[in-house]
Amino acid sequence: MAERTKYILDEADMPARWYNVIPDLPEPPPPPLHPGTREPIGPDDLAPLFPQALIAQEVTTERYVDIPEEVQDVYRLWRPSPLFRARRLEKALGTPARIYYKYEGVSPVGSHKPNTAVPQAFYNAAEGVARLTTETGAGQWGSALAFACATFGLECEVWQVRASYDQKPYRKLMMETFGATVHPSPSELTASGRAILAADPGSTGSLGIAISEAVEQAAQAENTRYALGSVLNHVLLHQTIIGEEALKQFELAGDTPDVLVGCTGGGSNFGGLAFPFLREKLAGRMDPVIRALEPAACPTLTRGKYAYDFGDTAGLTPLLKMHTLGHDFIPDPIHAGGLRYHGMSPLISHIYELGLIEALAIGQEDCFAAGVKFARTEGIIPAPEPTHALAACIQEALRCKETGEEKVILTALCGHAHLDLPAYGAYLAGDISDHALPDEVLAKSLAGLP
Amino acid sequence: MAERTKYILDEADMPARWYNVIPDLPEPPPPPLHPGTREPIGPDDLAPLFPQALIAQEVTTERYVDIPEEVQDVYRLWRPSPLFRARRLEKALGTPARIYYKYEGVSPVGSHKPNTAVPQAFYNAAEGVARLTTETGAGQWGSALAFACATFGLECEVWQVRASYDQKPYRKLMMETFGATVHPSPSELTASGRAILAADPGSTGSLGIAISEAVEQAAQAENTRYALGSVLNHVLLHQTIIGEEALKQFELAGDTPDVLVGCTGGGSNFGGLAFPFLREKLAGRMDPVIRALEPAACPTLTRGKYAYDFGDTAGLTPLLKMHTLGHDFIPDPIHAGGLRYHGMSPLISHIYELGLIEALAIGQEDCFAAGVKFARTEGIIPAPEPTHALAACIQEALRCKETGEEKVILTALCGHAHLDLPAYGAYLAGDISDHALPDEVLAKSLAGLP
Repeated sequence: MAERTKYILDEADMPARWYNVIPDLPEPPPPPLHPGTREPIGPDDLAPLFPQALIAQEVTTERYVDIPEEVQDVYRLWRPSPLFRARRLEKALGTPARIYYKYEGVSPVGSHKPNTAVPQAFYNAAEGVARLTTETGAGQWGSALAFACATFGLECEVWQVRASYDQKPYRKLMMETFGATVHPSPSELTASGRAILAADPGSTGSLGIAISEAVEQAAQAENTRYALGSVLNHVLLHQTIIGEEALKQFELAGDTPDVLVGCTGGGSNFGGLAFPFLREKLAGRMDPVIRALEPAACPTLTRGKYAYDFGDTAGLTPLLKMHTLGHDFIPDPIHAGGLRYHGMSPLISHIYELGLIEALAIGQEDCFAAGVKFARTEGIIPAPEPTHALAACIQEALRCKETGEEKVILTALCGHAHLDLPAYGAYLAGDISDHALPDEVLAKSLAGLP
Repeated sequence: MAERTKYILDEADMPARWYNVIPDLPEPPPPPLHPGTREPIGPDDLAPLFPQALIAQEVTTERYVDIPEEVQDVYRLWRPSPLFRARRLEKALGTPARIYYKYEGVSPVGSHKPNTAVPQAFYNAAEGVARLTTETGAGQWGSALAFACATFGLECEVWQVRASYDQKPYRKLMMETFGATVHPSPSELTASGRAILAADPGSTGSLGIAISEAVEQAAQAENTRYALGSVLNHVLLHQTIIGEEALKQFELAGDTPDVLVGCTGGGSNFGGLAFPFLREKLAGRMDPVIRALEPAACPTLTRGKYAYDFGDTAGLTPLLKMHTLGHDFIPDPIHAGGLRYHGMSPLISHIYELGLIEALAIGQEDCFAAGVKFARTEGIIPAPEPTHALAACIQEALRCKETGEEKVILTALCGHAHLDLPAYGAYLAGDISDHALPDEVLAKSLAGLP
């Protein structure tokens, strides 16, 4: 028998609980504030947007939350997801390091997003909601919610950033195949959208604007709620099934990670893999370095300010204490659309402030070089977002080659690039640059923050 | 514990041999003929195109062929592939039938094609070949060979039908990401291509023309061989790992198929799943109905002639005894590009003539309706090709609903539609018709055959 390529859990061994990291932290994260009163918000403030079950999960102090059987049933369409040992990449690099990747591209839409879309659709359906609204950029989150809504018989209405709506029709077609309605944002359908279009009829939109439109619609329309694909506590909670599975798979492998790397946009992919390992670290059962990777074009953790800011452009959301570049910051149009968010999960931000994780920003050229190397050795063409983590992983493996260290590296491969292939085309044609954020642009954007 | 959604084999249980159905048939298939002498061709006739190992596999009478360890090592990047029980589809249909699907979309390129691309690249590399040429239509086969060549350090040169090259840039980008060179066909690079362009400078190409270009290049260029993605015995041999795995998975499920449905273009997906079950049927160990599904636009088995014909347009290949619509037949541009081949695997054709399998042609509207229903229940958006089998599967399940029969249906889900989403867009917009082949067009095309 050859050495193993992948570690697969049986369906019966799929974790039946999500993990909430908050009770294990030395102190709790600062609460969201009402923008008018600047007092901590309560459940009633969130009720127009979210069902009670999700509001309860947002603020729970329980360490574990049971995964409903109906959600597990849908998860089993692709979960448990595989943990791979990247033997062919290791060989190509000539490194003594052992590289593992947890692959979420096996989901119906090709990323980790359905891990939270499915429970969000389930809890809304269970409370009688008929329709969900959301925003999406490149479309990973929108297609995940479209799939989840199809599964539980909900209508799904998506505002997609117009630049992506026009340039990336495949994601829109995926959402429509799952039965969703997709609008380009800004749209004439909401006051937020109309205000933007009045000021700039040719606006190509932004994630912050699309959030404003979806939130506004959910707050006003009957029997309609809003769903967010990252940033919030309950979203990260749902994603912890990734890390819980990975822990079991490392047991099968008889190995323990020394370094864990994941990319961060809103933080849900990173948190999903990292939090269960952070629990083990805090309990003294292992001691991995945990490292967040972000694009140099949108360096929230490494160069943003830790301050209260809005989650959207129009200022309709509560104020969140997070690392932010300013809620009207619009990053360069890098291909890693999922990492182009001005803020960061408040929970990840808090954990970063506590010194429990590291962060590093990286340019686009190294990312795509890593993506191509990975594709040609491991066969999977990684989405632009996780190439940030892969580039860091390869750097670490090459350091090991110099030092001779047999480090164990774990990376979150949160999706494939089937619908992002033009990004690889641009890289192969030499049309990718690093897009590092200029100091003066950053300073100007941060100046507006408290 | 809930009922199982999928049956996963451990890597250690991956079959280590391919199955050759020929020795188990009541009579062997008619041999390929040299177009000049009309005598059976020998190994020397194939040597300019294929390595010795593959020529030996093309004519072997051994029942089993060992899978080289190097090939198994690459297979393990995605194999064993899952066998799913389509419980959510069953529930939506309200059928007492039990529906299973063997899913090949988990491969790096999203289809079953790498099952043969990998061994083809391996045997060529082992015999010192430096470069492979091939043709591709929509691009599934070209991207599989590009991936396989990257794995074994071979150059890969692909002639892609110009209509697809222009309309479906994502597949070309995938091939290029794996390191392949892609030419639109017809091209100025070959005599075959130049002849077509001289007659019709605006030619958008065909699979037959692209085969001519790739074969011509392989026969002339140094240290270069040709690779074919379907039709031939060795290709179907490699694909039998699908059926061998499925047999083991049915043992895990404690079930036995009554009906097996698969789509047929060149025949490799269908043969790959069906042949191991046909062995069991011939040995009296089970008795499934085995049914091939083809598009009404290209009804090779159901309306073609069983005759000796060329595999390509220019007449560069040996003559193959097969069900054919004529080697210059150009089917309507249906979205199931993989089913638009004028001929059929000689082995499948022979088995059909022996009465061991059934065949049925189906229109495009039923196919896409089945694809959408499947996506919204099972989460996977099926490639246009396997929607033919899914439509038949759903018909069978609905018959069971009427009769109350608890039939067990197995279908080959050979790939996903991530790079075919515009086809779903056309269906949702009402722009899909059945494309049944008119009698007079068929009669004219068949008139040229012996």
